[in-house]
Amino acid sequence: MGPAKESLGGSFTLARVASAVGGRVAGNAALRLSGVRGLEEAGPSDLSWIADERWAREGRDSRAGALLVASEESASGKPAVVVRNPTLALATWLEVWRPSARPRPGISRKAHVHASARLGKGVSVAAGATVEGGAVIGARSVLCPGSFVGRGAVLGEDCYLHPNAAVLERCRIGARVILHAGAVVGSDGFGYVWDGERHRKIPQLGIARVEEDVEIGANAAIDRATLGETVIGRGTKIDNLVQIGHNVFVGEQSVLCGQAGIAGSARVGRRVTLAGQVGVSDHATIGDGVVATGQAGIVRGANVPAGTVVSGMPAAPHRDFMRSAAWVARLPDLARRVAGLEKRGGGAGEGETPWKSESPKS
Amino acid sequence: MGPAKESLGGSFTLARVASAVGGRVAGNAALRLSGVRGLEEAGPSDLSWIADERWAREGRDSRAGALLVASEESASGKPAVVVRNPTLALATWLEVWRPSARPRPGISRKAHVHASARLGKGVSVAAGATVEGGAVIGARSVLCPGSFVGRGAVLGEDCYLHPNAAVLERCRIGARVILHAGAVVGSDGFGYVWDGERHRKIPQLGIARVEEDVEIGANAAIDRATLGETVIGRGTKIDNLVQIGHNVFVGEQSVLCGQAGIAGSARVGRRVTLAGQVGVSDHATIGDGVVATGQAGIVRGANVPAGTVVSGMPAAPHRDFMRSAAWVARLPDLARRVAGLEKRGGGAGEGETPWKSESPKS
Amino acid sequence: MGPAKESLGGSFTLARVASAVGGRVAGNAALRLSGVRGLEEAGPSDLSWIADERWAREGRDSRAGALLVASEESASGKPAVVVRNPTLALATWLEVWRPSARPRPGISRKAHVHASARLGKGVSVAAGATVEGGAVIGARSVLCPGSFVGRGAVLGEDCYLHPNAAVLERCRIGARVILHAGAVVGSDGFGYVWDGERHRKIPQLGIARVEEDVEIGANAAIDRATLGETVIGRGTKIDNLVQIGHNVFVGEQSVLCGQAGIAGSARVGRRVTLAGQVGVSDHATIGDGVVATGQAGIVRGANVPAGTVVSGMPAAPHRDFMRSAAWVARLPDLARRVAGLEKRGGGAGEGETPWKSESPKS
Repeated sequence: MGPAKESLGGSFTLARVASAVGGRVAGNAALRLSGVRGLEEAGPSDLSWIADERWAREGRDSRAGALLVASEESASGKPAVVVRNPTLALATWLEVWRPSARPRPGISRKAHVHASARLGKGVSVAAGATVEGGAVIGARSVLCPGSFVGRGAVLGEDCYLHPNAAVLERCRIGARVILHAGAVVGSDGFGYVWDGERHRKIPQLGIARVEEDVEIGANAAIDRATLGETVIGRGTKIDNLVQIGHNVFVGEQSVLCGQAGIAGSARVGRRVTLAGQVGVSDHATIGDGVVATGQAGIVRGANVPAGTVVSGMPAAPHRDFMRSAAWVARLPDLARRVAGLEKRGGGAGEGETPWKSESPKS
Repeated sequence: MGPAKESLGGSFTLARVASAVGGRVAGNAALRLSGVRGLEEAGPSDLSWIADERWAREGRDSRAGALLVASEESASGKPAVVVRNPTLALATWLEVWRPSARPRPGISRKAHVHASARLGKGVSVAAGATVEGGAVIGARSVLCPGSFVGRGAVLGEDCYLHPNAAVLERCRIGARVILHAGAVVGSDGFGYVWDGERHRKIPQLGIARVEEDVEIGANAAIDRATLGETVIGRGTKIDNLVQIGHNVFVGEQSVLCGQAGIAGSARVGRRVTLAGQVGVSDHATIGDGVVATGQAGIVRGANVPAGTVVSGMPAAPHRDFMRSAAWVARLPDLARRVAGLEKRGGGAGEGETPWKSESPKS
Repeated sequence: MGPAKESLGGSFTLARVASAVGGRVAGNAALRLSGVRGLEEAGPSDLSWIADERWAREGRDSRAGALLVASEESASGKPAVVVRNPTLALATWLEVWRPSARPRPGISRKAHVHASARLGKGVSVAAGATVEGGAVIGARSVLCPGSFVGRGAVLGEDCYLHPNAAVLERCRIGARVILHAGAVVGSDGFGYVWDGERHRKIPQLGIARVEEDVEIGANAAIDRATLGETVIGRGTKIDNLVQIGHNVFVGEQSVLCGQAGIAGSARVGRRVTLAGQVGVSDHATIGDGVVATGQAGIVRGANVPAGTVVSGMPAAPHRDFMRSAAWVARLPDLARRVAGLEKRGGGAGEGETPWKSESPKS
């Protein structure tokens, strides 16, 4: 199979890029390019970008025909557009160059739309999509095949439900929210009570409320509250396969990376970053601006102070974690030294413990 | 967007709650309430509950109009219903107050039901749901849009398949089983054999058998056995995004929390709790009543004794894990002390190792 | 519910098995069997197999009527078929005995196939499946109910999309690729840039390219590239709920086990094994033949040398990890010994730190 083509938007001049991103051309403004690529893949007909001055060298050594840069120096003589934030300029240019194609408005005859549902202007509902009774779909929202909007659910304007994404009964979704394929909003919270013989289900009567400009990744799951609301704050971005339990509150503009999980009733602040596979236990509280690094485990009821960076399980300040991890790696040596001291001091020396060797697949 | 209303069931008196849950009213039995809320959100017109005597204080300080409590004392003078298990009473009351609305029975003309499928009385099959040849659907079961029941699969009575949930070919589902949106039962086990050049797929001819009263979370996946059966025992509750490999056996009344994973041929006992993101390796055995705390890793072939609480990777008894973790945090200090002893004892002192500082996002 | 029957392929003689797998009969070639089972479940009428000579004892003690074995000795007198690789022979025999039933070719009148899509010979598109404009479906490929092939996407020959699996716009899938239920290929990469007030989405214009003979597990998610391609190499097997970020490259014949996650722009070599719940951070590089054990965490930008086995977070060579883990378990003891030395040496002795006791559910 050949490589994919991105020259979807056709060719363009450096001048056009500069005007689109509000930048200044350094070099030949009439230079014509046909694609946009990262530094490694870029060729003479491609525009690329230097996200960070530290990569100026890679930029210079790349085969890119032109660069988006923060300073003329970092262009190292290549034709360039100088702009304050090259990555932001990249986003802007890609939107201009290749506007995302929305499907034609209209309700497919093969869609399943209940008579009591209210659809705004310019809504697109594909064949095989379902809108149940009393649901409200905001103007220009798009429902792809297999997507589902349950009874009494409310979607804002310009939402996009990718194939098989589901917003369940009574949940509320703000404007410009994107649900990627298979994402679920409003599944029952995981709530049971032991009655002496079995787990009795606690009815989950609350909802999930997703504020505007949120994006939810493929096959992610956000539970409805037992009572009240599970809340995802405005502008927060949620990656694929993330799990959010019932009654969780996530503040605005946070970033939850792939496979992170947040257990019931946890509170996550604004501008928080949970890296991949981070686990947040129930009733934990995470302050604004916290960064939890990959696979960190924040234990039940923990309270992570605003602005801190935490790592490990149980999560500790990142610096402490790294320092301890370095010593853990040197523990056998440290133990040897202790044994040596004991020998010299006449203490009861000890050798190393044998440990059960294990299958690498374990 | 305003908050969601839960007063779906209309207003009610404390007397009605008491009779529904088999409790005793303390205070004004005629007190009329309109909603049910947790202690933090509850207002004067809401019923709330004190799940645990330790929270009596929060109950007293709350704005709740009335409380479900285990003892009159813990109501601190508020109107209350006294009952042995307030959380159980909450579950009972929510069922009475707001019975879950099942869709009207009947087969949508837009459903895809094979002529050879056998559907019980009062079954509901929505538009866009599929029932393949030879499948059997028990009485009163509900198939939501996009849900799928494969060839020869058998569902018991009163099952509920939420949107896009799938029970694949020949799998067997007991009575009252709930599959949440996107849950998959019966995907192929992950079985291959290297033939010298490539991974040859081992046909997965077994099934997955899910016993009665099991609940399976959104986008969870349960593989069929290579041969024989993958079994989920009666009453076990499985949270969102849980992965269960082929030929796994899970006993009755266990609880598998969000994003836990169980690899092929592992055996999990009865009343086991796997907290969030726990990993169980293949061929491991987990005794009855074991609790594995968040992110614990149970290694290949391990045998966890019944009734133990384990933590960490590799999993160890929780107390030992916590003790070791406390010392890991103090390792730099311990190492300094060893270096000090060596200096005094004339041993070869050592400073700290520098460690590679790492990106918090890593 | 009774057990499932696997005698789907009807009864067979040992001679027939031998000829099918190219093996030699030891014992009664006319022996008639009716099923195939693992050693534990096998009965007198079942064929079983000894995957590894170490299990010869279990084979002898089993009730199996006959065995696939690598040497006559390991059959311990039972009727057997002797073959170089018994597990490979098992795979071959299961294919012969019970060939997988493909649905009848043809396009359901209830499928949603765009007029401009091009479908090869013998394609099967079920009711409720969608093929969008300009998509190409290779000969004999199967699209189950709820499966989706987006605009301009290309599928090779003999592909199989299980229920609700989705291949999004412009992505390219090689021949004989299997997507299990709910698997998603081509969701947007998780790319944003902070504009000072909010996360601006970086348009994800690239694709995901999945080469031939790849298998992708239930509810797994593979993101498209920002620009260029996310690549899954030929013959690689991906388990359920695995997450693959944008611009990731995975080499040929690798194995990614359940719930493993690979962050953006990471490079994974050929014949790599990532065990369950392994996390690979962005821009990490993993050499050919690397094995990462369960829950290992490979940090941002790390470079894991070819052929190594790594464990832990941050990932270290498996032997070192096991050695350190053994000492971590003995840290309280080591600390006591250091305190003892200090006392004898007149150093400032220290007791143990108390540690916050934690809920086992944390």
